[in-house]
Amino acid sequence: MRALVFNDAYSVTMQDVPDPEITQSTDAIVRVVATCVCGSDLWYYRGETRRKAGTRIGHEFIGVVEEIGTDVGGVAVGDFVISPFTYSDGTCVHCLHGVPTSCIHGGVYASRGVDGGQGELVRVPQADGTLVVVPGGRPDDALIPHLLALTDVTGTGHHAAVSAGVVPGSVVAVVGDGAVGLSGVLAARRLGASRIIALSRNPARQAVATAFGATDLVDLRGEDAVGAVVELTGGIGADATLECVGTGESVNTAFAIARPGSRVGFVGVPHGVEFPVGIAFTNNVGLAGGVAPVRTYIPGLLDDVLAGTIEPGRVFDLEVEFENLSEAYAAMDERRAIKAMARLS
Amino acid sequence: MRALVFNDAYSVTMQDVPDPEITQSTDAIVRVVATCVCGSDLWYYRGETRRKAGTRIGHEFIGVVEEIGTDVGGVAVGDFVISPFTYSDGTCVHCLHGVPTSCIHGGVYASRGVDGGQGELVRVPQADGTLVVVPGGRPDDALIPHLLALTDVTGTGHHAAVSAGVVPGSVVAVVGDGAVGLSGVLAARRLGASRIIALSRNPARQAVATAFGATDLVDLRGEDAVGAVVELTGGIGADATLECVGTGESVNTAFAIARPGSRVGFVGVPHGVEFPVGIAFTNNVGLAGGVAPVRTYIPGLLDDVLAGTIEPGRVFDLEVEFENLSEAYAAMDERRAIKAMARLS
Repeated sequence: MRALVFNDAYSVTMQDVPDPEITQSTDAIVRVVATCVCGSDLWYYRGETRRKAGTRIGHEFIGVVEEIGTDVGGVAVGDFVISPFTYSDGTCVHCLHGVPTSCIHGGVYASRGVDGGQGELVRVPQADGTLVVVPGGRPDDALIPHLLALTDVTGTGHHAAVSAGVVPGSVVAVVGDGAVGLSGVLAARRLGASRIIALSRNPARQAVATAFGATDLVDLRGEDAVGAVVELTGGIGADATLECVGTGESVNTAFAIARPGSRVGFVGVPHGVEFPVGIAFTNNVGLAGGVAPVRTYIPGLLDDVLAGTIEPGRVFDLEVEFENLSEAYAAMDERRAIKAMARLS
Repeated sequence: MRALVFNDAYSVTMQDVPDPEITQSTDAIVRVVATCVCGSDLWYYRGETRRKAGTRIGHEFIGVVEEIGTDVGGVAVGDFVISPFTYSDGTCVHCLHGVPTSCIHGGVYASRGVDGGQGELVRVPQADGTLVVVPGGRPDDALIPHLLALTDVTGTGHHAAVSAGVVPGSVVAVVGDGAVGLSGVLAARRLGASRIIALSRNPARQAVATAFGATDLVDLRGEDAVGAVVELTGGIGADATLECVGTGESVNTAFAIARPGSRVGFVGVPHGVEFPVGIAFTNNVGLAGGVAPVRTYIPGLLDDVLAGTIEPGRVFDLEVEFENLSEAYAAMDERRAIKAMARLS
């Protein structure tokens, strides 16, 4: 089979790799129908985090169940499934608390001997707890991007919104106009926010933000952005702030525009972030979030995708041939694309 | 009139000072019946934070309204009142959001030209929004410590518990056995926690913790304390963790014992704290809290004090003569007392 393999910084290539096999009775093998590149894939691509050469990569995919282990009962061969980017048993104490990302039998794709998702076939551990079946068999091609988005980015944006405490009527600010930030806008709208201020300086991203429900665009950064949001909110600040970047500047911006007593929802994996504990304490601004428990959110989001009320796949603005998936990395790295995907079959 | 005045590190003395006067139509003058020393008073006492020599100090007091400004309508001369440690108008957007500590017309006692609370008389700004009247006139002497505790420490412990998300049935861990930590135990019990693990190595404080509802005592610190709490919770961690110290070690301990997906409520004013953003992100452990909006909590807590269902004043284990209030600082500094108070009239 073919799969994308990491060689070195700025070098990922499609290669022949062995077909996966069921190794645990709780495994399933999924034939991938579509896969995509995550913003977090860019860290090792850019050499910012270390990765072993010759390893499979990627963690976002949807597809069809091709084989199941003897203890798998929740999915069947032929099911069309969505996998969140982490696998989990669905039964441990952390899963039951809605945090499958901390599952005691869980993990993330493309690490610790588990396949990457950017390949023709993927071995899925803990298949019953992990996979979500799309009812009705293979969906229409037009739905594929929207279902693919549910593997990570939509649920991650949703986690930012939930963690920030968005409720009907909230005035929301979203820091970050990457695919996650845009998905945060969508989530805030879906949760009933009355006003959504998106920080973006890029016209293409501004367009998606507006399509997803942003009511105000702030095309500034740092102190200027803070001033603009504070002014837009009448000096009060945002009721809920979504931090979807993960840099020191973005975190400081988020805390500076948050209304006293509110929360910052953070889903941008933090890099070199020093948490502004002083302003958090003085203003009673909380921080919640982290690696998104996407599995928890997929069923509700899937209902809305199938009902046609949300189109989260609009974050994909580039589609490449599967054999050419390395171009998806390059395009996202160079910010020529917000998020890129490929279809396999 | 007499009031405690800060001279220099380890030097606070009772001195003659001018009587306060109504300066704003929204002011009231309160004749203090009882006052006490806060853990945060120890910072300038120890020279850890700077303070101008010759300034009045203290921010916790109860007493009787002696005079009111022309725009004060919510309290009357003769009312027995509790003041939270901050004043607030009760009508601004932040007050209406339950965060009077961020009141746009608010502040804290003993700063910016406002009297300290450790004196015979105190000018209270924004009297209508700030003061809470104790119904029934002057209370029984036995109630004085419990009412005095409501000015800060009880509400601060409550804020830790609320911020940490304590709900009926929660397994709670409390880091810190000072008066705030002990009040956090009381708050967790009052909010229905099924199990309360208190970290304390001091027998006197352990006794108060147990009286307040602690079900388990851990007399360890750092890594050992983490191991003990993790073991006590079956490897799961606490559903809600109260961080009532504010040091780097205590914050790290709190995050290490928090169950994935839970929150740490923090009310210990942070000193040299580097927030453990990595573990917070990985485990989805949130942080909430800050300077406690005590005014918001007083009415509910007062009801319980008057009903006799809580006795928050048990955190006071030393009572001194008002003229000798400097001894209260020394006793708390030397950890001879958990918290010390004085009665005036």
